[in-house]
Amino acid sequence: MFFEKVAVIGVGLIGGSFGLALKVAKRCGQVVGTGRSAANMKTALQRGVIDSVEPDAATAVRDADLVLVSAPVAHFEKIFQEIRTNLKPDALVMDAGSTKRDVVAAARKGLAGRVKQFVPAHPVAGAEKSGAAAASAGLFRDRRVVLTPLVENLPATLEKAAAAWGACGARVSRMTPEEHDGIFAAVSHLPHLLAYALVNDVSGRANAAQLFGYAAGGFRDFTRIASSHPEMWRDICVANSDQLLKEVIRFSRELEKIEKLLQNRDSTALEKLFADARAARERWLNGEYE
Amino acid sequence: MFFEKVAVIGVGLIGGSFGLALKVAKRCGQVVGTGRSAANMKTALQRGVIDSVEPDAATAVRDADLVLVSAPVAHFEKIFQEIRTNLKPDALVMDAGSTKRDVVAAARKGLAGRVKQFVPAHPVAGAEKSGAAAASAGLFRDRRVVLTPLVENLPATLEKAAAAWGACGARVSRMTPEEHDGIFAAVSHLPHLLAYALVNDVSGRANAAQLFGYAAGGFRDFTRIASSHPEMWRDICVANSDQLLKEVIRFSRELEKIEKLLQNRDSTALEKLFADARAARERWLNGEYE
Repeated sequence: MFFEKVAVIGVGLIGGSFGLALKVAKRCGQVVGTGRSAANMKTALQRGVIDSVEPDAATAVRDADLVLVSAPVAHFEKIFQEIRTNLKPDALVMDAGSTKRDVVAAARKGLAGRVKQFVPAHPVAGAEKSGAAAASAGLFRDRRVVLTPLVENLPATLEKAAAAWGACGARVSRMTPEEHDGIFAAVSHLPHLLAYALVNDVSGRANAAQLFGYAAGGFRDFTRIASSHPEMWRDICVANSDQLLKEVIRFSRELEKIEKLLQNRDSTALEKLFADARAARERWLNGEYE
Repeated sequence: MFFEKVAVIGVGLIGGSFGLALKVAKRCGQVVGTGRSAANMKTALQRGVIDSVEPDAATAVRDADLVLVSAPVAHFEKIFQEIRTNLKPDALVMDAGSTKRDVVAAARKGLAGRVKQFVPAHPVAGAEKSGAAAASAGLFRDRRVVLTPLVENLPATLEKAAAAWGACGARVSRMTPEEHDGIFAAVSHLPHLLAYALVNDVSGRANAAQLFGYAAGGFRDFTRIASSHPEMWRDICVANSDQLLKEVIRFSRELEKIEKLLQNRDSTALEKLFADARAARERWLNGEYE
């Protein structure tokens, strides 16, 4: 498996790291990139993340064997439309979006008859850092990449997609877009929302300065994901609002239960709840859920 | 400021680190310790965290110039009763509890006429690790220690207390117990409760294994504090249940607001909420709230 020309649409943390990882693994010839920010594209060139800059997506995908669309998801449909006619018939197209049902819908509209060339992908390797400056060849090592195949995809296309991420060191799995969006609503989108909510809850108070002044390491780690990219998380929340709403409502009920335990000062039940959570987290850290 | 003999009641992460820090700063002669776990006391001796083990708190505090009570807060009243009659008249007694109103009440009952020797202290330097094995001389460096003085404390007693923590490298400040418990309910106790709640919410589901299987770095950091000590957090929640309840209710309202934004798929308001949170967190990380 070798890709002579790889085109990265949106050379941020994810797109840039994908190009770098394929280069380091010697699975590609050249990597071309295109993006909205001239400064970021310059950084990408200087760091060797890409070999050349193309003026737009339509130009970038010409002759490309592999295309990664890693722009904000809200722009996908337009990008798919722009690249459709220039795609080589055997080019593999993937994305790197954090939601999948909306991406599949955008691909069906934007790529139309070429949609069988598109394999939806979600590399689970975010970070609050962004841009080509943060890209690294090792970003996907031992990380999960979830593919949510289309019925139109040929088995060979899916194998090529899995092989590309495998070459980046990722653990590749497959599920439906619905299943994907449900799982990530619970373990990723909800925690992000809670972290953003806590920071806003604190920062909106009259004594915010005093409160932040005494916030320590626990607060810092808990809220780390509240430093994530607002535009990206806006798109995720809107695209996955139904699943995320279910999670928010579910979590609110969990909080109501705890509220009752606090009202009753039920020390036995509180300790059990904390001990159960700690034990479950330890099992997770020990890899018992891999 | 030099303490010939320091007694540590409960040689865990905090108590052990306090003894080590005073030793390294050359502010004490010997450190004696006592605790419930023989294995932990052995570790404390072997690591040089303490110089000798005493059979109980009453024995340990004899001739001590400085006593740190760093056992679980639920045991404080009993410990205060036990040590009261053996305290030197000029011995300084402090605690390291995470709540302060309950500690003050326990001290008034347990220490009775000796309560003026007691300065309530909260070193803000937790970690999910515990025990003498995790103790380190640098634990309090640049960390906050909050003193919540009693009306009975003499100025010289308070100065000695501040100097002891200052020698450990801490930034010492003062406030009332009420103020303390309100602040920490918001920036520490609530996040802990939310992290425990999220882990329990996930682990209680039929597809928990699958969910944990896709949980990544964001989830790991967000839930780090859910690996904290269940017994300690039970005591904190019960002791500070009124303030914590206010915080839970407040946070639930914040979540309801977000629920509405999701229902309306209000991308503008969601992005603003995320951007505001990120900006506030950046200001905090940049030290603008110090």
